[in-house]
Amino acid sequence: MNTKIKRIAVLTSGGDAPGMNAAIRAVVRSCSYHNLECVGVFRGLQGLIEADFKEMGPRSVKNIINRGGTILKSARSKEFMTKAGRQEAYDNLKEAKIDALVVIGGDGTFTGASVFNEEFDFPIVGIPGTIDNDINGTDYTIGYDTALNTVVEAIDKIRDTANSHNRLFLVEVMGRDAGDIALNAGIGAGAEEILIPEQNLGRDRLIASLKRSKKSGKSSSIVVVAEGDQIGKNIFGLAEYIQQNMDEYEVKVTVLGHIQRGGSPSCYDRVLASRLGVGAVDALLEGKRDVMIGISHSKIVTVPFTEAIKGDNEIDLDLIRVADITSV
Amino acid sequence: MNTKIKRIAVLTSGGDAPGMNAAIRAVVRSCSYHNLECVGVFRGLQGLIEADFKEMGPRSVKNIINRGGTILKSARSKEFMTKAGRQEAYDNLKEAKIDALVVIGGDGTFTGASVFNEEFDFPIVGIPGTIDNDINGTDYTIGYDTALNTVVEAIDKIRDTANSHNRLFLVEVMGRDAGDIALNAGIGAGAEEILIPEQNLGRDRLIASLKRSKKSGKSSSIVVVAEGDQIGKNIFGLAEYIQQNMDEYEVKVTVLGHIQRGGSPSCYDRVLASRLGVGAVDALLEGKRDVMIGISHSKIVTVPFTEAIKGDNEIDLDLIRVADITSV
Amino acid sequence: MNTKIKRIAVLTSGGDAPGMNAAIRAVVRSCSYHNLECVGVFRGLQGLIEADFKEMGPRSVKNIINRGGTILKSARSKEFMTKAGRQEAYDNLKEAKIDALVVIGGDGTFTGASVFNEEFDFPIVGIPGTIDNDINGTDYTIGYDTALNTVVEAIDKIRDTANSHNRLFLVEVMGRDAGDIALNAGIGAGAEEILIPEQNLGRDRLIASLKRSKKSGKSSSIVVVAEGDQIGKNIFGLAEYIQQNMDEYEVKVTVLGHIQRGGSPSCYDRVLASRLGVGAVDALLEGKRDVMIGISHSKIVTVPFTEAIKGDNEIDLDLIRVADITSV
Amino acid sequence: MNTKIKRIAVLTSGGDAPGMNAAIRAVVRSCSYHNLECVGVFRGLQGLIEADFKEMGPRSVKNIINRGGTILKSARSKEFMTKAGRQEAYDNLKEAKIDALVVIGGDGTFTGASVFNEEFDFPIVGIPGTIDNDINGTDYTIGYDTALNTVVEAIDKIRDTANSHNRLFLVEVMGRDAGDIALNAGIGAGAEEILIPEQNLGRDRLIASLKRSKKSGKSSSIVVVAEGDQIGKNIFGLAEYIQQNMDEYEVKVTVLGHIQRGGSPSCYDRVLASRLGVGAVDALLEGKRDVMIGISHSKIVTVPFTEAIKGDNEIDLDLIRVADITSV
Repeated sequence: MNTKIKRIAVLTSGGDAPGMNAAIRAVVRSCSYHNLECVGVFRGLQGLIEADFKEMGPRSVKNIINRGGTILKSARSKEFMTKAGRQEAYDNLKEAKIDALVVIGGDGTFTGASVFNEEFDFPIVGIPGTIDNDINGTDYTIGYDTALNTVVEAIDKIRDTANSHNRLFLVEVMGRDAGDIALNAGIGAGAEEILIPEQNLGRDRLIASLKRSKKSGKSSSIVVVAEGDQIGKNIFGLAEYIQQNMDEYEVKVTVLGHIQRGGSPSCYDRVLASRLGVGAVDALLEGKRDVMIGISHSKIVTVPFTEAIKGDNEIDLDLIRVADITSV
Repeated sequence: MNTKIKRIAVLTSGGDAPGMNAAIRAVVRSCSYHNLECVGVFRGLQGLIEADFKEMGPRSVKNIINRGGTILKSARSKEFMTKAGRQEAYDNLKEAKIDALVVIGGDGTFTGASVFNEEFDFPIVGIPGTIDNDINGTDYTIGYDTALNTVVEAIDKIRDTANSHNRLFLVEVMGRDAGDIALNAGIGAGAEEILIPEQNLGRDRLIASLKRSKKSGKSSSIVVVAEGDQIGKNIFGLAEYIQQNMDEYEVKVTVLGHIQRGGSPSCYDRVLASRLGVGAVDALLEGKRDVMIGISHSKIVTVPFTEAIKGDNEIDLDLIRVADITSV
Repeated sequence: MNTKIKRIAVLTSGGDAPGMNAAIRAVVRSCSYHNLECVGVFRGLQGLIEADFKEMGPRSVKNIINRGGTILKSARSKEFMTKAGRQEAYDNLKEAKIDALVVIGGDGTFTGASVFNEEFDFPIVGIPGTIDNDINGTDYTIGYDTALNTVVEAIDKIRDTANSHNRLFLVEVMGRDAGDIALNAGIGAGAEEILIPEQNLGRDRLIASLKRSKKSGKSSSIVVVAEGDQIGKNIFGLAEYIQQNMDEYEVKVTVLGHIQRGGSPSCYDRVLASRLGVGAVDALLEGKRDVMIGISHSKIVTVPFTEAIKGDNEIDLDLIRVADITSV
Repeated sequence: MNTKIKRIAVLTSGGDAPGMNAAIRAVVRSCSYHNLECVGVFRGLQGLIEADFKEMGPRSVKNIINRGGTILKSARSKEFMTKAGRQEAYDNLKEAKIDALVVIGGDGTFTGASVFNEEFDFPIVGIPGTIDNDINGTDYTIGYDTALNTVVEAIDKIRDTANSHNRLFLVEVMGRDAGDIALNAGIGAGAEEILIPEQNLGRDRLIASLKRSKKSGKSSSIVVVAEGDQIGKNIFGLAEYIQQNMDEYEVKVTVLGHIQRGGSPSCYDRVLASRLGVGAVDALLEGKRDVMIGISHSKIVTVPFTEAIKGDNEIDLDLIRVADITSV
């Protein structure tokens, strides 16, 4: 056990994700359990530079496990990308007698943390908090499961109206580089077609397939489109193209947008966040640093930051086949 | 009691609304209760022209009270706007030995029904089913209460992320002519500002007000915008204008779109739809026709179609004051 | 305008109800709007006796409109039922320079408030906050609409499993004296039978009716039972009796219990609570006292406490007929 | 590929679970994809004996992926536990020219299937559908994730009222032999204590712990109790015992009951069910039989029935530690 660590700071950074509060709560209470002091940092890495700190105890995090967003707030920090900014952050941490840092966020956050760790030899561990599930070395990121449920519930509502009117809906979901949300939510919502960045089958194949499924007796269609998909990037243009080439349906577009980031976290995300929060403090006490705490095969693992941010997202081909078969 | 009526048809027309299925169920079961035959017409007024009919009994409508959309489907019908189309519809009704008709829909539907009633002296009563709550003579339309809950739940999610990032969100909700959804959901969601078609206070007053509330200590802001609002019609342009004149927030846009039409109906909408469905059959049996069944002060009322579709929506000034005060 | 009132206290008392926080928020912000000071009293009338006070400003009530329960907490107070207790309360109010009081609660709260008002000539207005909807002079109480949705959503889930297994479920809902929740949620959930305190049709009529509906082709049945119903009071005994006399179904019991009190308030309850909160401060400033603020025909009204707590709940016979017809 | 299989039957058996419909849909559409015929069997194994069959095509399963329960209904079958009953079932399958069977259910179903498979050399594969997650060889069973979310949402509501009144709630959740639901939902809901069948720490330790957490500043407490827990089996007796030994709280009991079985399935359960349904047909075509299709480390696996039903549920000690730490 690393007996030098007596005071730990925690922050959330990057895009917020449901379950971040559960992770903060677990870090704070784990500190208390181990008789460590805990400091909350507001507005992510920028809060380090501005010394926006607050002492936290077990009761500071009561009744937050069920709330979306992050009570520590989040922000992007341009200053932290400069050496001077990071020096300021380091000085503030030293002045506040903070011995180690837990950062909750995505790949941008981990990149900054890794640089900082190296420059100042300051112990940092990370917790993957992002709805995009685009981090290497962990099966799930905090917020991903909740976002999938949010998307599926929204599409269930859209299908009500699609069915009533024999319409085709293009539904844009988050995912600039990764099709995970689109693919899983698409299967879950019973979408006829799913467009993801990792695949480009072309607009005409899409239309041919939609015509086929219409002919087979479907009375409405949902096409789920990841925002980063090649042919779906301009979703309104795609809708127009489909409408011009297909009069079987009235074509409509819905962009789900930021509702995907919020909401009360699912049980899975709350448990995951609790485990990762506890695991982060454990790891620091075991002398680990420059690593992310992840989950793999239902077990807590540690993954070097450099590994975690590699970001070569691979799509599960088995899922694509399941999507094809179940939309028959 | 009108003993000539032995066989009633029911249809849904115009935009679908949650609770339409509960209304269909009530009409069908009410027919059964009164020992009348009941016929479902698919795809609204167009289904009359195409004789798209189906016999319905109490068990045909089981397990639908909780489902959004309409099992009878809906459609707009250009043919019904022609004399020839309406003649076709009449002939089909006669051939199917249908004595009276219940139409569930909005003002467009009632206008068509009223013309038809007059032309062919055919008994029709209407049930107001539209999320817009823009029908005269009834305190509520079916689907409105559910849509309000859907909007408020969506904005709750958006506020999670808005709070975490100190952002300003413009959220577009339905309402081309009527600000009811925007005003009520705006109050319910705790919006800082609400833009409705019935008022135009200008972009600069909006910005001044947002700056004031930011200064008073708010860390995020939600502005709810009815799609028909003058300055909010081009919501992306408005966002740009605000961003240019206000660097206190990062400005984002969310267009809620068709999720507002779907979803499992609220208890209120299910009870309302059940009452109106029962009331519609009662009215026909009492010899009424050319009227809408509405609710006023928690009592079932009948309102002439001509009255119902007047459509001079008046905004509740008391609510505007409540919105102003509670967003202090 | 009553210019003597400069400082208003607000409290929640009795059973909590979703929307109480929205009412607190509206009272606090309305005070701010009128340049009045506002004081929160914790734990209801007991908090008056213990001088458990806290200054409140517009930012103290941010982000609570969407939360169930009450941030001011609630409690029952035996001490307030004694003259000595009330004297203590009065002395504390005077010492804290509080000029008037807004109490949010049910009939017990209003009774106490009315006595206090008379004894000490202290201005009090009430806001009806209770899921039971059992207050005279207001069409709705805060929390009732949310509770109906909670009950209906729970029964929707129970029906999934009832349908899958051909079962009969007895579902107990709140309502010791009033059948409003049972009757409305029963219609909304499509219950086959609804047992309410205001009616006693006997166990054998119930069984006869259930047998009839089973024969008509129903594959499962839901019976909604208000906790105060005569034959349903001992719900497990009733279940046994039905099972002994009816082998068509497997009979199961679910007692919904306290989940009915919680949850994020519906849009209706949030808007209602906002209006009543604003109305309460308005009334005090107009010199009113010893009254409840209610809603009647969508307009804000004031009702003497003595009127509000009369409590001769009348059941809507029209609704009973609708329940009978739609469960055919 | 097993070219002898041309016609597959599918059934659901035992307690229903959300996601069963998604599994049925996947089996039916997978048959269509592979040009096989598909037959639905109603009411589980009993339906085999009564030859309660129905031809199914891709359109028979439309719009069911989002619905709880099972469209094929479920039942327990005493007859299937006799040799004569199984012979009847076999004869019916042969007469209907069914070549293989997919059963969706829990350990009871798999036991019956395994016996049948052996007796008649009839190809059967199983899909784990039960909210209890008590099947060996699969990380998740269909319905478990949804049940966790249902429990957590219910406890969120209860906490609203617990917090408002400084109460202690005992909440009983499903789990006769397995504490998985209690443990995960307990962590997710932020319960102070979790009582599971696998552990018995005694009533007095529980009370000591609750007193400690009350002293540390908690204003309310939730204790989650699995129905099979030793000291929680008589939950009303336990409540009384706690109340007698602890006057810091008012003690209340809620039994969640059958709402845990229903509801629209979560995205996870829909995707899992879709994958397992596709996997079941794949397995039959590959000549597999007498196996369950499961998921392990996000990959589809096959597990012999005998292995799947071993049922020596082991509790995750890591989770117990997380529960202890995060409830500090």
